[in-house]
Amino acid sequence: MGSDSDLEKMAEAAKVLEEFEVPFEITISSAHRSPERTLAWTEKIKAEGGKVIIAGAGRAAHLAGVIAAHTTLPVIGVPIDGGPLNGVDALYATVQMPPGIPVGTMAIGSGGARNAGLFAVQILATQSPELEEKLLAYKTKLSDGVAEKAARLQEVGYQNY
Amino acid sequence: MGSDSDLEKMAEAAKVLEEFEVPFEITISSAHRSPERTLAWTEKIKAEGGKVIIAGAGRAAHLAGVIAAHTTLPVIGVPIDGGPLNGVDALYATVQMPPGIPVGTMAIGSGGARNAGLFAVQILATQSPELEEKLLAYKTKLSDGVAEKAARLQEVGYQNY
Amino acid sequence: MGSDSDLEKMAEAAKVLEEFEVPFEITISSAHRSPERTLAWTEKIKAEGGKVIIAGAGRAAHLAGVIAAHTTLPVIGVPIDGGPLNGVDALYATVQMPPGIPVGTMAIGSGGARNAGLFAVQILATQSPELEEKLLAYKTKLSDGVAEKAARLQEVGYQNY
Amino acid sequence: MGSDSDLEKMAEAAKVLEEFEVPFEITISSAHRSPERTLAWTEKIKAEGGKVIIAGAGRAAHLAGVIAAHTTLPVIGVPIDGGPLNGVDALYATVQMPPGIPVGTMAIGSGGARNAGLFAVQILATQSPELEEKLLAYKTKLSDGVAEKAARLQEVGYQNY
Amino acid sequence: MGSDSDLEKMAEAAKVLEEFEVPFEITISSAHRSPERTLAWTEKIKAEGGKVIIAGAGRAAHLAGVIAAHTTLPVIGVPIDGGPLNGVDALYATVQMPPGIPVGTMAIGSGGARNAGLFAVQILATQSPELEEKLLAYKTKLSDGVAEKAARLQEVGYQNY
Amino acid sequence: MGSDSDLEKMAEAAKVLEEFEVPFEITISSAHRSPERTLAWTEKIKAEGGKVIIAGAGRAAHLAGVIAAHTTLPVIGVPIDGGPLNGVDALYATVQMPPGIPVGTMAIGSGGARNAGLFAVQILATQSPELEEKLLAYKTKLSDGVAEKAARLQEVGYQNY
Amino acid sequence: MGSDSDLEKMAEAAKVLEEFEVPFEITISSAHRSPERTLAWTEKIKAEGGKVIIAGAGRAAHLAGVIAAHTTLPVIGVPIDGGPLNGVDALYATVQMPPGIPVGTMAIGSGGARNAGLFAVQILATQSPELEEKLLAYKTKLSDGVAEKAARLQEVGYQNY
Amino acid sequence: MGSDSDLEKMAEAAKVLEEFEVPFEITISSAHRSPERTLAWTEKIKAEGGKVIIAGAGRAAHLAGVIAAHTTLPVIGVPIDGGPLNGVDALYATVQMPPGIPVGTMAIGSGGARNAGLFAVQILATQSPELEEKLLAYKTKLSDGVAEKAARLQEVGYQNY
Repeated sequence: MGSDSDLEKMAEAAKVLEEFEVPFEITISSAHRSPERTLAWTEKIKAEGGKVIIAGAGRAAHLAGVIAAHTTLPVIGVPIDGGPLNGVDALYATVQMPPGIPVGTMAIGSGGARNAGLFAVQILATQSPELEEKLLAYKTKLSDGVAEKAARLQEVGYQNY
Repeated sequence: MGSDSDLEKMAEAAKVLEEFEVPFEITISSAHRSPERTLAWTEKIKAEGGKVIIAGAGRAAHLAGVIAAHTTLPVIGVPIDGGPLNGVDALYATVQMPPGIPVGTMAIGSGGARNAGLFAVQILATQSPELEEKLLAYKTKLSDGVAEKAARLQEVGYQNY
Repeated sequence: MGSDSDLEKMAEAAKVLEEFEVPFEITISSAHRSPERTLAWTEKIKAEGGKVIIAGAGRAAHLAGVIAAHTTLPVIGVPIDGGPLNGVDALYATVQMPPGIPVGTMAIGSGGARNAGLFAVQILATQSPELEEKLLAYKTKLSDGVAEKAARLQEVGYQNY
Repeated sequence: MGSDSDLEKMAEAAKVLEEFEVPFEITISSAHRSPERTLAWTEKIKAEGGKVIIAGAGRAAHLAGVIAAHTTLPVIGVPIDGGPLNGVDALYATVQMPPGIPVGTMAIGSGGARNAGLFAVQILATQSPELEEKLLAYKTKLSDGVAEKAARLQEVGYQNY
Repeated sequence: MGSDSDLEKMAEAAKVLEEFEVPFEITISSAHRSPERTLAWTEKIKAEGGKVIIAGAGRAAHLAGVIAAHTTLPVIGVPIDGGPLNGVDALYATVQMPPGIPVGTMAIGSGGARNAGLFAVQILATQSPELEEKLLAYKTKLSDGVAEKAARLQEVGYQNY
Repeated sequence: MGSDSDLEKMAEAAKVLEEFEVPFEITISSAHRSPERTLAWTEKIKAEGGKVIIAGAGRAAHLAGVIAAHTTLPVIGVPIDGGPLNGVDALYATVQMPPGIPVGTMAIGSGGARNAGLFAVQILATQSPELEEKLLAYKTKLSDGVAEKAARLQEVGYQNY
Repeated sequence: MGSDSDLEKMAEAAKVLEEFEVPFEITISSAHRSPERTLAWTEKIKAEGGKVIIAGAGRAAHLAGVIAAHTTLPVIGVPIDGGPLNGVDALYATVQMPPGIPVGTMAIGSGGARNAGLFAVQILATQSPELEEKLLAYKTKLSDGVAEKAARLQEVGYQNY
Repeated sequence: MGSDSDLEKMAEAAKVLEEFEVPFEITISSAHRSPERTLAWTEKIKAEGGKVIIAGAGRAAHLAGVIAAHTTLPVIGVPIDGGPLNGVDALYATVQMPPGIPVGTMAIGSGGARNAGLFAVQILATQSPELEEKLLAYKTKLSDGVAEKAARLQEVGYQNY
């Protein structure tokens, strides 16, 4: 992530990876304030066998794009809200990449960070029946969670929910 | 893709997959006009061993999200412009997915479609040294293309370019 | 509604239906997290003689559109605010439906939910003189409420209102 | 509709009503330039047994809201594009109605006009098994149309489509 | 104004008129909830010799436009913020009037309400040397106020201001 | 107006003033390129007994605001479209004036220019029974124009209009 | 800056200039409320040998543009948020200057103010090896700050950061 | 500039520099497609004594920001329109830089490119009485151009201009 102020939101991605027992490395590196560190880290991850990179940043969010420019790994971008434009700036700066350098962009903010973790798992699961099974279980849990809430709503009524 | 009016733009994704010699299936299926067909096709792709799904749609673009709701495969979304809102509606409807159901969203329009193809290749390349090599070559070609244009610009001057 | 976090806002629709003594069923079902449940519920409502469906959801709000794809009943959509884009994403994802699958969209948030209830009553009132009468009384009450406030404002002055 | 410049787009609504053999009256009346005519027409429609009103207007589109203020019939609003803001102004002015006066808003432009006709049919179909049957046939036709295009795409390939 | 929830903001217009000793009438009347009252009041103001009408409303703010449709008096519109779109909806619905029915639109919110009062005074001052003089004094006071703040800033320094 | 490229649109204001036989002066003066000329002209208009100033400009449209800062006359602003932002920039830069310096803002573009002329006439008509009468006639003509179009639509049908 | 309400944000620019030991003058002057003072101050700064002007203002932010119209010095604009549009209005009114009168625009709000100070230092540093050296040190400090945070994150883990 | 498709617009900057007889180098280098070339070129410019860098790019325009991250020279950014979002994406991606790394952003498109050239001249003119004189002459020419157009407009009338 580009700044430690993004940590609270980006932690959602880390939590998902832990839930799925996928090993990961999390760090802070800014495309603007520490550009060399960002490039060095990108190469290190590739050299160490990393498969996917998740990059979260706010405002003129260049982090995901800069990393994508320097690697062949799939890069997942999370636009972080927080400034006066509520993350629309970060969304446009992350998703509107020119032809040739894709960034798989998630929703703005912590929900997007959570989905970035899941999307990384989905990518890895294309080669891992074990992860695939966990994803199916996760989807069932999501669906069951909705059903439970619906059952409770029916039981207690909308006024008492 | 959700409509044959999206074909001209989505063809860019197909061209990239052909360039990288990645087998693919392309079809038209609307989340709204042919929902059953969409679900059946999503399951068919999974059953046949498909690894990644690319979905392009315009306006209230639900196609990528509906497919993502029914599969564990990574889904790449391409917001298509064309209506009065120039694709901002399709962008929001594709990228702002709720926690639990990620869609890796690309830029609006044909550039985004091209990148969707590349992103799919990047995902596949995490397990294929051959594709990885092609991606490196592609990145070199991109970079060389810029250098050639820069050389030509220097040679002829900006007035004659 | 797509999530129990939408309940506080969507409750406004339920309250209106109770005011007009229109029977209704309220549930939680997500287009993304519980797609099968959503389709099953849509068919159940139709089978049980339901006349109108109200769907409220936030962000990339697909719920109303997905339901509309699977039924011939009129579907009323309520875009819910709550995320960083304040419901503009939900508005676009609900209202910008493609030709063939309409969703009658209301204002963003709780006011829109209230209006969704009223719009459902208006639809039912096209065949019910009793509901029609209640709607006329409701309109008179709205108008009287404004007149009363105006009278009080004139009486106490704007500084003391 | 508010102006004859909206006719080309609003004609889509009329065409749908003709397809479904639903009788209708189409007229031009501006909320701003001919307000008395608008109110008189609204009352006339109600008196003649009209069940649904469709209102299409551009820019600061007040037509649907003004009609809704004067009737208990369900009012369907179509925001028309055409000015420099491409219909976002008309969308906000149509959909963001205050609590108490709903307008069922469709997508911007001719697609929205088409859907307004369909939505009116859906409202009427809640009391007409015949219209209900036609709607089911329409939905099947939509779905078949997609399947045919998909079949043709598979046959000729995306380059020759 | 369209609702008593707008009073806190619209009171700024009333305060200005009191500062300039311009007689005025303030009331609540909704274009949607009490349309007849709005038209009756508009005619009453004209009949009593009113010269300018200020209308403040939020969301799909039709109040100023509806009044302007029914009078030849200049109508000043104030878009009120308060809903999820922060008044952009009210701004578009107030300012984007069609040719033939102008509304002189002010900034969103309480600052706009204050300016609405001033703009009304400016209109009246075109025929009143007394008001013209007061406006000049007001402008001088504005300018002096800035100069005083600047002097204080220079004196105490920006850290202690 | 700020540039001769705005003339085609701003000519609409001039035409209205000619229709109402209101004397006026039209000139080009930029708040940015010829600031001294702008201030001198503003003072000249006041000295010559001008009653209202109309200012049209595009992009970061400062013209109306700069004039309003230097006069007590009511200033009517017309945001001109033409650049990549389609006049939203000009609208915000014209309407969002700070408390103390109002600009009565019209719709974006030529329709707004036409309304600026009308609004100026409305201001003058508050002291001129003759102009007031012309305005009433104008409103009747607008209304009659709509009625005529409606009659023609009814006669020929929407397909042949 | 245009108002003392902007001081808290604009103070960031002053702090940077102090960090770099660059002499500066800070004042309040409104393009709208004290236009003469603004022009006089602009000329004074030039006459006293000032090299760069930073102007911060909100809403229809004309301050930077008005100053730029009256000087040949580079003008840096800071759009200030604070009103209902969160500074988008100020951004457009500052950055969308017409050809001939540039304003070097920074990000919205306090971060933009900080950058305005830095940009001024960068301009001065083009002629000052001493400032250049300080800028290099500043960039190193930024980069080191990121590295330290990254090290701490690695040490304590993201849950305890 | 980031692509040769930006050349037509960015040529405006080059023309201004030629008008002012300021030596410059123009090249194509993408932050994404040729990142190493971009960094190498940035360092080369600095080493050769370059004083200012102008960077123009579209969509998720990272070019100015990436250059600014690697140099202490002032960087002027020009957001280029051309894609479906008309340059709003490029504007946000250029201007919303985080604290520490300023980019002096110009208007979207060719007008912004022209201003970028002028702003560069203004920066250089802070140390060059000769350039300062040329800037004063340029400003006079701008002002004279407006006066000439105004004179012609007065002579021929607005209908014949």
